[in-house]
Amino acid sequence: MTQEKSNKGRFFEDFQLGDAIYHSTPRTMTDGDRSLYISVYSSRFASYCSSQFAKKIGFQGFPLEDLAVFHMVFGRTVPDISFNAIANLGYAEVKFFDPVFPGDTITAESKVIGLKENSNGKSGIVYVETKGFNQKNELIIKFIRWVMVRKSSSKLLGKKAIIPSFKDCLSAKDVPTNSTLKFDKFDYHLSGENFTLNDYTIGEKIVHGGGITLDESEHILITRLWQNTSLVHFNVNERRDGKRLIYGGHIISMARAYSFNGLANAQVINAINSGTHANPCFSGDTLYFWSEVLDKYKTDLPNYGLLRLRLIASKGKVETFEIKDDNENYNSNIVLDLDYWASIPY
Amino acid sequence: MTQEKSNKGRFFEDFQLGDAIYHSTPRTMTDGDRSLYISVYSSRFASYCSSQFAKKIGFQGFPLEDLAVFHMVFGRTVPDISFNAIANLGYAEVKFFDPVFPGDTITAESKVIGLKENSNGKSGIVYVETKGFNQKNELIIKFIRWVMVRKSSSKLLGKKAIIPSFKDCLSAKDVPTNSTLKFDKFDYHLSGENFTLNDYTIGEKIVHGGGITLDESEHILITRLWQNTSLVHFNVNERRDGKRLIYGGHIISMARAYSFNGLANAQVINAINSGTHANPCFSGDTLYFWSEVLDKYKTDLPNYGLLRLRLIASKGKVETFEIKDDNENYNSNIVLDLDYWASIPY
Amino acid sequence: MTQEKSNKGRFFEDFQLGDAIYHSTPRTMTDGDRSLYISVYSSRFASYCSSQFAKKIGFQGFPLEDLAVFHMVFGRTVPDISFNAIANLGYAEVKFFDPVFPGDTITAESKVIGLKENSNGKSGIVYVETKGFNQKNELIIKFIRWVMVRKSSSKLLGKKAIIPSFKDCLSAKDVPTNSTLKFDKFDYHLSGENFTLNDYTIGEKIVHGGGITLDESEHILITRLWQNTSLVHFNVNERRDGKRLIYGGHIISMARAYSFNGLANAQVINAINSGTHANPCFSGDTLYFWSEVLDKYKTDLPNYGLLRLRLIASKGKVETFEIKDDNENYNSNIVLDLDYWASIPY
Repeated sequence: MTQEKSNKGRFFEDFQLGDAIYHSTPRTMTDGDRSLYISVYSSRFASYCSSQFAKKIGFQGFPLEDLAVFHMVFGRTVPDISFNAIANLGYAEVKFFDPVFPGDTITAESKVIGLKENSNGKSGIVYVETKGFNQKNELIIKFIRWVMVRKSSSKLLGKKAIIPSFKDCLSAKDVPTNSTLKFDKFDYHLSGENFTLNDYTIGEKIVHGGGITLDESEHILITRLWQNTSLVHFNVNERRDGKRLIYGGHIISMARAYSFNGLANAQVINAINSGTHANPCFSGDTLYFWSEVLDKYKTDLPNYGLLRLRLIASKGKVETFEIKDDNENYNSNIVLDLDYWASIPY
Repeated sequence: MTQEKSNKGRFFEDFQLGDAIYHSTPRTMTDGDRSLYISVYSSRFASYCSSQFAKKIGFQGFPLEDLAVFHMVFGRTVPDISFNAIANLGYAEVKFFDPVFPGDTITAESKVIGLKENSNGKSGIVYVETKGFNQKNELIIKFIRWVMVRKSSSKLLGKKAIIPSFKDCLSAKDVPTNSTLKFDKFDYHLSGENFTLNDYTIGEKIVHGGGITLDESEHILITRLWQNTSLVHFNVNERRDGKRLIYGGHIISMARAYSFNGLANAQVINAINSGTHANPCFSGDTLYFWSEVLDKYKTDLPNYGLLRLRLIASKGKVETFEIKDDNENYNSNIVLDLDYWASIPY
Repeated sequence: MTQEKSNKGRFFEDFQLGDAIYHSTPRTMTDGDRSLYISVYSSRFASYCSSQFAKKIGFQGFPLEDLAVFHMVFGRTVPDISFNAIANLGYAEVKFFDPVFPGDTITAESKVIGLKENSNGKSGIVYVETKGFNQKNELIIKFIRWVMVRKSSSKLLGKKAIIPSFKDCLSAKDVPTNSTLKFDKFDYHLSGENFTLNDYTIGEKIVHGGGITLDESEHILITRLWQNTSLVHFNVNERRDGKRLIYGGHIISMARAYSFNGLANAQVINAINSGTHANPCFSGDTLYFWSEVLDKYKTDLPNYGLLRLRLIASKGKVETFEIKDDNENYNSNIVLDLDYWASIPY
């Protein structure tokens, strides 16, 4: 059988520290992508629903939602980074820079910044820094991500582990802001809520209304839209239980969309500090969402505040705010623990 | 638990006669919405499928389907009007004015025009008049709607019921027409049928070909596209039977799309007189459709006729045109009874 | 019952040799259609994902994928040609001419070029040549197709069979090429693979990575997008087994998208020689894909090569390249056998 033309993806041994990987499949984002995003998440943050609202607060066009950009850049990297991944372990220092407008074409590149072989000899952890660019070569997003990747052989390489340093949480000053935004023209009628930075208290918890039963079709359609090629989302033969694992990013976007209810004015995600997919999700699960206010900050830009938020998705109704057990392990009902910074007027 | 930031929606007690409610989440409609509409309904009315056809009959752009506009405006109102609704009871005097083109941004406002407490003390009926506007503040749609809304307490308010007056059916003269349309350039090859106003007879019944099995995914995707937030469509825990109720508007659009077969030239909906969702629909139901010609009218505009149509959707094949039993209750197989006016050349 | 307005489609007796049929429902294709195509197939051929890539290799715009154009033109023809079809038997000499860009409006017409009554008296085979045009009346696609169509009566017509002549396979010289394409500017980093025409060997087989479980929702959404009205795809009552048959074109597009893995640079389909849907597909089937290189050709245009490929879709993993049994019947696991020409740089 002549199979060598079909890309099998990189195994742990194929990654070298300092490797620069230019990802393929540049992608022009359009209003078609926007409509599909809304049809799957029903996201209601006004800047991404209304070109008029976006313009009024200073966007130079009708931006695509920040998480859509994140998923699209992430999708570029899958064939090169995580095609043979066992698990997507985490990300850090996710920074959003220039917004993406319809017609913009996204490319992505990654650099290998850390490698750690597992002692079982079967796998290792690969750390990469990924950057996304638009067609003008402007940086639109940058993030660190680490994944557990299969080895092609079980021979121990025995190389010294190199673990990159990164911040558990970006300090407010390190969070990128969009200097064109003018929050003095913010229309609280249209945005859906009256709350500004001043109305939130550190430690405050917000239970977002609603709850959503996840379906097979929606997560598959949207994960394909990002051209994420990880087989486990699409093929029932890839897991022993015959289930198709839902892409973790799907849960992030669903949780974020539901967080509108109580955080309607925290419209723009500026940075993600960390994210944990604490338990897998499958079709049929019904999720509920709550947020905790972790920090507040007033930037130097007029009326431009930042909220640091912890966003939790859980299977079943929110009856307690407990997330972990006494051993610091996530409770079995918790599926997402996301820590991020968002813009909000003050 | 600090929950107060999450919007719980208005209860019956929260509505006051004369209240003006400015709905949030303005929405720019695009060709992405058009494609999703076609992917869910396979609608084939030529003006909404072909920019060339639309232009030739006088549209000033490539319009989005009238029912898509209706659902989008309706979606704006749900968080404010019907989030705590028990049932969507009816609508009347739905009038379509200026068409919506890709790039137009829709806003909506409603006025409380009637209130009637139910004698059980648990709920009441709220009547609203809703208007939709584009970004130039031109009126695109206006309609009356009434819903049964939960009360927050079971204490009887005992206020006098105020029931607004509205027409059971708009007379042909009161139906808005689009004066830019020129039906002398109508291409009957491209539209799909040769029938004009003259070919229809009052009382004539048309069984539309086909029949469609409803799926969970399609109604959920499209209802989210309209950002309709009613929980009962999305969350299996919201009904005792664990089923997700299909948004009534989904049935209207599906029925309308199938009515192409026999009414291909009745392309533009000008007004809806009334609509009843006689029985609920769920995933797995297979629907069939027929129409009755209720009235015909020649407007003052050249070649511009109006057909008044009754559109019925039923579970199971159409074997009889009976809709109601001897007690004037809908038969259990009838799911939609819609009365509307549409434009047609003559 | 007054049913005559609803189109019942043509039966075998309704076709006459030489009939010219102008299909209805012109369709303006947009970036919304592109996004839906990607969300269903996750297709990654760079010219159709990136406006920048497309421009760089000489496209005069951001083209819609060739198979999307094929399905769209095919969809136009269903109400007139195959509404009463028992089976879609085959197609030949499918030639792709001018590319379709967002905003282009597609129309289609067919000519009856052959008729053969079946001896059972119940059906006959109709051969048509279909052409698709854009709004400038430029030819975008042309193909021959034959279908088995029901008769309205079982009386034998007894007319002499007329079977048109067509080529089992287009010779490389007869394959339309796009003279604006310039493959010297081809970016192999962005396209995803380094292979050019020179790297492929006649007889070489490529097993494409992955494998996909088919879902009900995706095939229904995309088949509706093409406005293909064949009832058997949408209504569970149309087949005795209660299953909804998946549109054969869905399998073609899925197979083609997966063939990216090993054929990333064979981006543009220029012609389809033949296609057989060897066995029906239903929701729940898991498909795998492989290709065989049948021929290679260097055109007169600079760096512009052609690959003739056989693309196979099978239920279950590819463990052998056997397609047919000793009696030349397809094995039960084979669902698609497609023979086509694609452009590739050299």
